[in-house]
Amino acid sequence: MQLTSVPPADQAASTAPFDAIAAAGELAQRLSETAVERDRAGGHAGPERELIRASGLLALSVPRAYGGPGADWATVLRTVRIVAGADSALAHLLGFHHLQLAGLQLYGNPAQQRRLLAATIEERIFWGNALNPLDKRLVATPTAGGYLLNGTKSFASGSVGSDWLTISAWNPLAGAALIAVLPTRQPGIAVQPDWDAFGQRQTDSGNVHFSSVLLPDDLVLQAPGQAATPRSTLRSQVAQLVMANLYLGLAEGAMAAARRYLLEEARPWFASGPEVEDAIDDPFVQHRFGQFRLLVRPAQLLADAAAGALDAAWRRGAELTAAQRGDVALAVAEAKVLAHRAAIEIGSQLFELTGARSTSGRHGLDRYWRNARVHTLHDPVDYKLRDLGRHALDGRLPEPTAYS
Amino acid sequence: MQLTSVPPADQAASTAPFDAIAAAGELAQRLSETAVERDRAGGHAGPERELIRASGLLALSVPRAYGGPGADWATVLRTVRIVAGADSALAHLLGFHHLQLAGLQLYGNPAQQRRLLAATIEERIFWGNALNPLDKRLVATPTAGGYLLNGTKSFASGSVGSDWLTISAWNPLAGAALIAVLPTRQPGIAVQPDWDAFGQRQTDSGNVHFSSVLLPDDLVLQAPGQAATPRSTLRSQVAQLVMANLYLGLAEGAMAAARRYLLEEARPWFASGPEVEDAIDDPFVQHRFGQFRLLVRPAQLLADAAAGALDAAWRRGAELTAAQRGDVALAVAEAKVLAHRAAIEIGSQLFELTGARSTSGRHGLDRYWRNARVHTLHDPVDYKLRDLGRHALDGRLPEPTAYS
Amino acid sequence: MQLTSVPPADQAASTAPFDAIAAAGELAQRLSETAVERDRAGGHAGPERELIRASGLLALSVPRAYGGPGADWATVLRTVRIVAGADSALAHLLGFHHLQLAGLQLYGNPAQQRRLLAATIEERIFWGNALNPLDKRLVATPTAGGYLLNGTKSFASGSVGSDWLTISAWNPLAGAALIAVLPTRQPGIAVQPDWDAFGQRQTDSGNVHFSSVLLPDDLVLQAPGQAATPRSTLRSQVAQLVMANLYLGLAEGAMAAARRYLLEEARPWFASGPEVEDAIDDPFVQHRFGQFRLLVRPAQLLADAAAGALDAAWRRGAELTAAQRGDVALAVAEAKVLAHRAAIEIGSQLFELTGARSTSGRHGLDRYWRNARVHTLHDPVDYKLRDLGRHALDGRLPEPTAYS
Amino acid sequence: MQLTSVPPADQAASTAPFDAIAAAGELAQRLSETAVERDRAGGHAGPERELIRASGLLALSVPRAYGGPGADWATVLRTVRIVAGADSALAHLLGFHHLQLAGLQLYGNPAQQRRLLAATIEERIFWGNALNPLDKRLVATPTAGGYLLNGTKSFASGSVGSDWLTISAWNPLAGAALIAVLPTRQPGIAVQPDWDAFGQRQTDSGNVHFSSVLLPDDLVLQAPGQAATPRSTLRSQVAQLVMANLYLGLAEGAMAAARRYLLEEARPWFASGPEVEDAIDDPFVQHRFGQFRLLVRPAQLLADAAAGALDAAWRRGAELTAAQRGDVALAVAEAKVLAHRAAIEIGSQLFELTGARSTSGRHGLDRYWRNARVHTLHDPVDYKLRDLGRHALDGRLPEPTAYS
Repeated sequence: MQLTSVPPADQAASTAPFDAIAAAGELAQRLSETAVERDRAGGHAGPERELIRASGLLALSVPRAYGGPGADWATVLRTVRIVAGADSALAHLLGFHHLQLAGLQLYGNPAQQRRLLAATIEERIFWGNALNPLDKRLVATPTAGGYLLNGTKSFASGSVGSDWLTISAWNPLAGAALIAVLPTRQPGIAVQPDWDAFGQRQTDSGNVHFSSVLLPDDLVLQAPGQAATPRSTLRSQVAQLVMANLYLGLAEGAMAAARRYLLEEARPWFASGPEVEDAIDDPFVQHRFGQFRLLVRPAQLLADAAAGALDAAWRRGAELTAAQRGDVALAVAEAKVLAHRAAIEIGSQLFELTGARSTSGRHGLDRYWRNARVHTLHDPVDYKLRDLGRHALDGRLPEPTAYS
Repeated sequence: MQLTSVPPADQAASTAPFDAIAAAGELAQRLSETAVERDRAGGHAGPERELIRASGLLALSVPRAYGGPGADWATVLRTVRIVAGADSALAHLLGFHHLQLAGLQLYGNPAQQRRLLAATIEERIFWGNALNPLDKRLVATPTAGGYLLNGTKSFASGSVGSDWLTISAWNPLAGAALIAVLPTRQPGIAVQPDWDAFGQRQTDSGNVHFSSVLLPDDLVLQAPGQAATPRSTLRSQVAQLVMANLYLGLAEGAMAAARRYLLEEARPWFASGPEVEDAIDDPFVQHRFGQFRLLVRPAQLLADAAAGALDAAWRRGAELTAAQRGDVALAVAEAKVLAHRAAIEIGSQLFELTGARSTSGRHGLDRYWRNARVHTLHDPVDYKLRDLGRHALDGRLPEPTAYS
Repeated sequence: MQLTSVPPADQAASTAPFDAIAAAGELAQRLSETAVERDRAGGHAGPERELIRASGLLALSVPRAYGGPGADWATVLRTVRIVAGADSALAHLLGFHHLQLAGLQLYGNPAQQRRLLAATIEERIFWGNALNPLDKRLVATPTAGGYLLNGTKSFASGSVGSDWLTISAWNPLAGAALIAVLPTRQPGIAVQPDWDAFGQRQTDSGNVHFSSVLLPDDLVLQAPGQAATPRSTLRSQVAQLVMANLYLGLAEGAMAAARRYLLEEARPWFASGPEVEDAIDDPFVQHRFGQFRLLVRPAQLLADAAAGALDAAWRRGAELTAAQRGDVALAVAEAKVLAHRAAIEIGSQLFELTGARSTSGRHGLDRYWRNARVHTLHDPVDYKLRDLGRHALDGRLPEPTAYS
Repeated sequence: MQLTSVPPADQAASTAPFDAIAAAGELAQRLSETAVERDRAGGHAGPERELIRASGLLALSVPRAYGGPGADWATVLRTVRIVAGADSALAHLLGFHHLQLAGLQLYGNPAQQRRLLAATIEERIFWGNALNPLDKRLVATPTAGGYLLNGTKSFASGSVGSDWLTISAWNPLAGAALIAVLPTRQPGIAVQPDWDAFGQRQTDSGNVHFSSVLLPDDLVLQAPGQAATPRSTLRSQVAQLVMANLYLGLAEGAMAAARRYLLEEARPWFASGPEVEDAIDDPFVQHRFGQFRLLVRPAQLLADAAAGALDAAWRRGAELTAAQRGDVALAVAEAKVLAHRAAIEIGSQLFELTGARSTSGRHGLDRYWRNARVHTLHDPVDYKLRDLGRHALDGRLPEPTAYS
């Protein structure tokens, strides 16, 4: 886990290697101090975004060739998981930032990668996402030197407060979509902070409106209709595995919070009998907590295995075959379903252990379920199960899409 | 369901029989119009309490002898269930109002019943609860003609805005608690509207502070240490069955809301294939909705069976044996566990069907889980299961307590 | 439950009314004495079939007009459930006998009903089933005065040892099937006792081979292609509800057997601590047994509700509408899924309570799971759930088929 | 997995390294050919025991110092898992043979280890178990040069047909038990092949009767009351992990058998619609199979992780601390619970996919549930969950017992 290069920007003088896991732990600690209040308030978490930036974690996935620490995905995802245990909304910003960097590496040409990945380090760029492939309202009309962008992208995670965005836009002439990047703060782009879901409230997932914005050719990563390769379709696997780790962090966080409450606040139920002196001595509490453990632990092992598979595939580069890409997708799907279940079940069931008093708003214990509930709906779990079952039955690999 | 007497007070001139079920339906309809906003705002729902009062439903359980319609518990609980489908916080106020009337009938002497039940009709009293038996901080010190009350009761459902309260208070001399009633609005009683749970937000469940309040003897329903009878311990069964119907209303409401969303808003998942034109044609959606139905329908039958058992026991009056009382407790426990599960599971799982867009705050669909989650923690489900299993194994009846 | 007419044939001199429930209880008691051994042996249970015949229960569903006690379906199904608690294979014979009588009443003309239902009483006929609609290998070729039958019917429950059979046969000229009855013991009919499933081993479910058997016109209940009516399609609901009661009897029997073992044989697990003196005092045992209770009890209420719906529909006769028939199908489907689950889950999980020693063959406790497992596969539970969900979503009734 | 030494005894001339995984695969293949019939027949599988002996796998865990291949536990357990996929009864014999070898290494002094482990290789000894610690009927009375053994041990896995046995015997003088080994075939020892459970039928789990058998001192591995060390209590973890791998093999075998049946025999359900051409195209079949996958895959990862933990602890030798031993116990408990669930659930649910015809005795598909059901009762899963929950709550390690 000891990474040997690029320290966080605010420690530039230091020559010590950068410990990403420790940095994530410290960031999680800081975020946890205000997580309950900020969840209640919702909206844009400007100062906390700056904590992320200051942590040095935004550079993590930038390859050494471009001045980054070149951490593998296993490490990047571990930091997402750790942060999500404290604040899954801000962990989403962190995770999706790295997803955009993955997109640059998978779609961009060498010049684009060089320019933008280096800039990510130097300018400490925080990336946002406006790529929602199911929303085709953003139109790219060819013009001299590039395209004119008009329209809207919804569910744009991390767009509010971002420096740069990845976008997809529909080219009606080509009957296909392009993928591009561009700076967020420029005339013609308006990010509307109207995300109002009941969970993941600080993910800055706005609607982004484009009005006659010029997209120069050299910011187009994928031209409309450009054929996908097994390697380029790894992007959806990075996205899915960011989510799996986010759910897993939520499950871990919920379990830790329940434990803390049980140790510090809970009293045994009067009918549990005289031999139960503390709430944690109740056999039903112990049994249910054992069940929680058996939700979390397998999800951890599967998430780690999937990260290993992703890293191996990543290292294969352009050689990656469709079959190898499919194996990654299967491992990621397995991890995502288990993490999904762990987060939802523990987020909801923890209260059976902690009891009525634990529902006070000041504990904020409902945010685990709310955050998990909102985020796990990114794509339907039933279709993951179908894909996993179908493959186990006849060897059919998941179709490469933005979700599988 | 057509009850032949006492119309709502504001229709006193009418001689038409009072249809409680229809009245509950109308009330639910009215409450549903503002339920999402009021859930978000929390606090005291003064105007909506007046809607309940105007509905005539507060009189429902008052016996005919005292001028009420004398509805059976099956009917009263059905109205609670119907209202809970739209607004489970206000349904709780309605249900717990009737619980106080049950307490009057179970604990009060004939004079007390006559006076207070008649007053309930005539003065259109809205009752609140301050009886929490696990909180012994309210102390009753004997004084001339009664007791002096000092201290606090927590989790006092419906106390904010109530006209009268049922209380329990600890008499340290007797080493036992008394049960009494008294008007809420009087010097020395301060109801603190500090309920801040993340669900059931408008249940007016404050802390009630008593400072040198005189409790006259004739408002004491049960003297400290007065022996319980099988009949008097029916009160906890009324309370538990109010809750079961409330959870059931939540489950029914969640299922109806999910269906409405699926019909009106949802789109099929792109991977479901061309033969799925509408979201409700998706086989996984249908299958899960079938599962929901099999959570709700058994809970309905069990709740109805338990209400029938309660009514039969109620009619037995002082003849009620411990064994008969135990059978009611078992039927109620069965109903409560199933309603609990239905409310929690549907409240959480409905989103697997309705998808990401349904998490927008304007739909307020998370309130089913939040309300169910908070309210189902009244007492631990694991001890209900233990009691049910223990009886099935060796015939041991649930011990009569405030929770069983 | 006190039925006022037709005593069992062997008590013909008696004038006492026939108590079907008591008779079923006695029969169950007798069958239980040998159930474990006979399950192990498999094959045809000739003497036990005679016990059923002697019980008088074969007459139960025959209308009074034809000399039977005219019990309603609720009573008939209750007897099936009681017998299934002791021996679900022989309960299947009893239930499917009544299914054939239902078929006579639903498909037969008045003369056929008169003749065959009266004969059922007088000749104490035991009916078997050879109607499997998915097996079209039995061919009916029109000939003078009727049809010639050639071919085979599989899964023919109760065929071995039956007196009469209901059959379906495919008429290739008409491109449709007929339904008929005929005596089992006649030249050209060979019942092959080759049922070898791992459960329901004594259901006499053979293959029936027909070789140039003349089927006279007056034994044809439904001509090929004769249109179904809502009423005639009730037959599949009788069949489904026989199964639901059979599964329910299995669940009840498994729970009773587990309880008996826990009381008489089991010892507490050493790690349960000193306060657990008997196995039934173990909190986990109590908790799981409570779960069992909550599997069985709802299934009972739903099965009773479905029987009530079936009886009401039955009484409507030819007036029965498709919508009313659909409501029966929904109630039956609900009951069947819950009974299915109860039987499978308790049959498998009971061992978690009873422990390693309870797996000895002499206890025969595995037969609950084996019998439930085999019989619940009659038609897939997932399609029941789909039908139930589909109706709850858009009001679509289950399509009338041999399974729904 | 390529082990570099000791080939199977019947290939002694060969110098090729021994591939244990391949050998296990070949053995599984051979055993699968007769597994259904032998399961039906029950009793002692003499020829198949010889197949195990001939496979070379009995030597696998013998350290190189004593002439064995010195495979790590991960490898040994993998072979158990592979064989259990085909025949879990014989896999139990294989696994428990290695458990006895573990006992020799954990309890025996250097001379005993040298003598008996070398003999295991040279004489191709097949070890059996008669150590059941909850059965104290076998009494060891001190006598000159050793003890006289009288009494009985029950649940003695692999005793029928074994060459040597590990035993525990109660010394009433010391008020403690000793652990010893001795040859099975000698006067005074009678192995009674009376195992009659409904599953794991060929595990040769007899009752072993001892009548005045002399146990010489040099075969006593642990004197009565000899203190356990963290290392010596690893034996129960080896035993538990053998079981976990056995359950896992059953789950894998059940899933593979279901898949085979679906591909080769099953037909789609008629109501699945025209787009479902094969049973494996049914969305509900795919979805359930996906669920199976998510039962098996986590159990595999946890079993592998636990094996790694066991190997690491094993290598620590006498240095092993109680805390380290506890971590192994936790990892093993996690793996065992998940493997237990996977085996029971898939063994029971697979039929929902394969349908009624798959219950024919000739397929023998019920043996997965029966074998899993019998074997998973070795010790109660609820106490594993309690131990896991208790540790997660307060860090308390599982108490070292014969089961934890």
